[in-house]
Amino acid sequence: MESSAQRRLDSITRHLLLPIQSNHGLQKVVLSSNGGLKHEEAEPVVIGGMVLDIHATPSFPANPRTTTPGKVSYVLGGVARNVAECMAKLGAKPFMISALGLDMAGNLLLEHWESAGLSTEGIWKHQNIETAVVCSVLDTSGELATAVASVESIEKFLTPEWIERFRCNIRSATVVMVDANLNPSALRSSCQLAAESKIPVWFEPVSVEKSRRINSVVKYISFASPNEDELVAMANTLSGGNVFCPIERESSTSKRSNEKLFHMLKPAIWVLLENGIKIVIVTLGSDGVFLCSKGGPNLMRVGCDGIKPCNPNEIFFNTMTASCPPKPFSSLQDSERSSFLFAVHFPALPASVVRLTGAGDCLVGGTISSLCAGLDIMQSVAVGIAASKAAVESKTNVPSAFNLAAIADDARSVYSAAEVVFHQSML
Amino acid sequence: MESSAQRRLDSITRHLLLPIQSNHGLQKVVLSSNGGLKHEEAEPVVIGGMVLDIHATPSFPANPRTTTPGKVSYVLGGVARNVAECMAKLGAKPFMISALGLDMAGNLLLEHWESAGLSTEGIWKHQNIETAVVCSVLDTSGELATAVASVESIEKFLTPEWIERFRCNIRSATVVMVDANLNPSALRSSCQLAAESKIPVWFEPVSVEKSRRINSVVKYISFASPNEDELVAMANTLSGGNVFCPIERESSTSKRSNEKLFHMLKPAIWVLLENGIKIVIVTLGSDGVFLCSKGGPNLMRVGCDGIKPCNPNEIFFNTMTASCPPKPFSSLQDSERSSFLFAVHFPALPASVVRLTGAGDCLVGGTISSLCAGLDIMQSVAVGIAASKAAVESKTNVPSAFNLAAIADDARSVYSAAEVVFHQSML
Repeated sequence: MESSAQRRLDSITRHLLLPIQSNHGLQKVVLSSNGGLKHEEAEPVVIGGMVLDIHATPSFPANPRTTTPGKVSYVLGGVARNVAECMAKLGAKPFMISALGLDMAGNLLLEHWESAGLSTEGIWKHQNIETAVVCSVLDTSGELATAVASVESIEKFLTPEWIERFRCNIRSATVVMVDANLNPSALRSSCQLAAESKIPVWFEPVSVEKSRRINSVVKYISFASPNEDELVAMANTLSGGNVFCPIERESSTSKRSNEKLFHMLKPAIWVLLENGIKIVIVTLGSDGVFLCSKGGPNLMRVGCDGIKPCNPNEIFFNTMTASCPPKPFSSLQDSERSSFLFAVHFPALPASVVRLTGAGDCLVGGTISSLCAGLDIMQSVAVGIAASKAAVESKTNVPSAFNLAAIADDARSVYSAAEVVFHQSML
Repeated sequence: MESSAQRRLDSITRHLLLPIQSNHGLQKVVLSSNGGLKHEEAEPVVIGGMVLDIHATPSFPANPRTTTPGKVSYVLGGVARNVAECMAKLGAKPFMISALGLDMAGNLLLEHWESAGLSTEGIWKHQNIETAVVCSVLDTSGELATAVASVESIEKFLTPEWIERFRCNIRSATVVMVDANLNPSALRSSCQLAAESKIPVWFEPVSVEKSRRINSVVKYISFASPNEDELVAMANTLSGGNVFCPIERESSTSKRSNEKLFHMLKPAIWVLLENGIKIVIVTLGSDGVFLCSKGGPNLMRVGCDGIKPCNPNEIFFNTMTASCPPKPFSSLQDSERSSFLFAVHFPALPASVVRLTGAGDCLVGGTISSLCAGLDIMQSVAVGIAASKAAVESKTNVPSAFNLAAIADDARSVYSAAEVVFHQSML
């Protein structure tokens, strides 16, 4: 019987490599075929917000002070939740630490988490918690008209005490991702637990305002994924003043513009690297991503060495490695000198945009799950960008399933178009 | 054992008459002490919308195009649902006919209905239904800033076919309340089923727009409860043109103003009565209520005779009758002439307003449940106004429980201040 079941699994697994196959089924098969082993292995830990986004869109331009017919939809959100959901859908099995109320929004978020087969052990559920909700009224073109965010519960209930209950999960984690929805003491507590076991920490800044929370934890952070405005705010906070101004963007997307843009962002990026962050991933929307570290390509890979591949997801690893052969820029003279700044630009992919939200979170989720699968940081960022393209083409923050073949193809395009934008001494 | 249980119930029932006792417990005891008998008895049937209201209130004035911190709350709503909930909390046991999706909002509405011990048999639940939701952003003072209503599902799924499944409930009902959220054919179907068994129908107009749906069903309607604007819209529809203009209000609330206000509304009220509606209850907000019929006080009571007292809720009946002794205006010369218009003004009660929504629905629910308990229409309207005061002093549309002693006291104030505002021939 067992060998017949195995044959069936093998046969299913072969089908999963067909181009049109989504990896929704893949994940399940991989998980079941690895069975009980899973629990022995290190898992990525994700700490932060689970939020319900309520979107109301009028059918025609809304008049103020009255009710307009339209549509109301519920979107599962929260930066940490989105990242973790994306990771799970790419084959990682994140352990989520968060807080939810026993209200309508909390029940919906929890049910979804349970139905995805993910652990809810780290999610504090209590009747005193008002589940974080963002209620947005859009205009008829889908742009935000006004929004009210009720998200204090994450700061209030996601306490150091709650997080410390899961010290075993954190200390054995492959990587810990924190979002800046955490209050400063919860952030510090998470980072310190990770640091005790040399677990790398990924900091997701959430918003310009919250990105400043980097200040008290920067020495623990290995990875940060700000957008331009968050980068500037973080650099200002870390240098103790308003040294850097928000970047004024140009509409052109030519190569020269990338270099010019990098030139403007470089001093702020350097502040983060000088403060000990090993890898800075600056997200630029339709202009792509800057991947930055000190030294050169080899040192950049070393910066990710803390992440032990945890996920024996060979199909994922092999598929992505075939699309994105490792070690590009090998002709590049590497520099071990810590005064060097090395930056690679990855382009964004053309997409049929449905909703822009979730793109940044899927970039992070795609990158982390790729690192966990054993890919290097350049391959992983390419996969992350492919995942974020799938996100903007979906109504939800995270697509209901990823098509692994499409992700591999998209990652290949991004990876092959990546180029070094800067590799010089900053002295 | 049985007689011991009975003694216990009797002892509890005595406690329930204490002034500070709310009738939340009362209702349960009355229901249990009447036990199995209940199902044999006629019940009021309520047909219409169950809606979730999502209210987002910013903590400080919201800027457009961005997110502002604040509070998001969920309020159970829908005119028919509110009326039925109010009736249930005053001891009636309404049978609800409505439609809900299997989504987050539908689950919340259904759970609440089940937990109140009410039948969900008449509520169609289906995954294709998007539960009716109204998403409102308020300003910091609690006034509506903008709102999006997604309520088509009531019109689409609350079909004549679904309603006809409950023909037995409708034909044996003590009264049928329909709200104008129903589409015209569902409205007609409900009314025709009721008419076949001479069951009186109460029409709740919902909004100015929807109140015009009276047109196709007016001949079946015994009771209507419009506000001033709905009254004018209904009268215009029934007379086939824009004969009546919206009433311009004055700020004064003196007696003369009531008479002046009635004078302005009288032609529109007469149109409704001439079209066969027996009792017109015009709600005036803080100016109270006009209760109107043809003839005089005795004919007005006869107009409600179709409602068989269904609810042997003696505590409720006795308490309210003690506060509002029947047969006021007995010195009044009654007129059997159908050319006479008889109108009584009931004042509103001073209230510490928390939220105005739900007031009109509790007025209707309080009035119908009083009629079902055997009170006459004047007593019932006084109880309805007392229930609507409790509603505006509550954050929810329907208070979590009614304090029966307070309702009786408030009803007494209203009842004793009621006065005839008009009793003349309209020829």
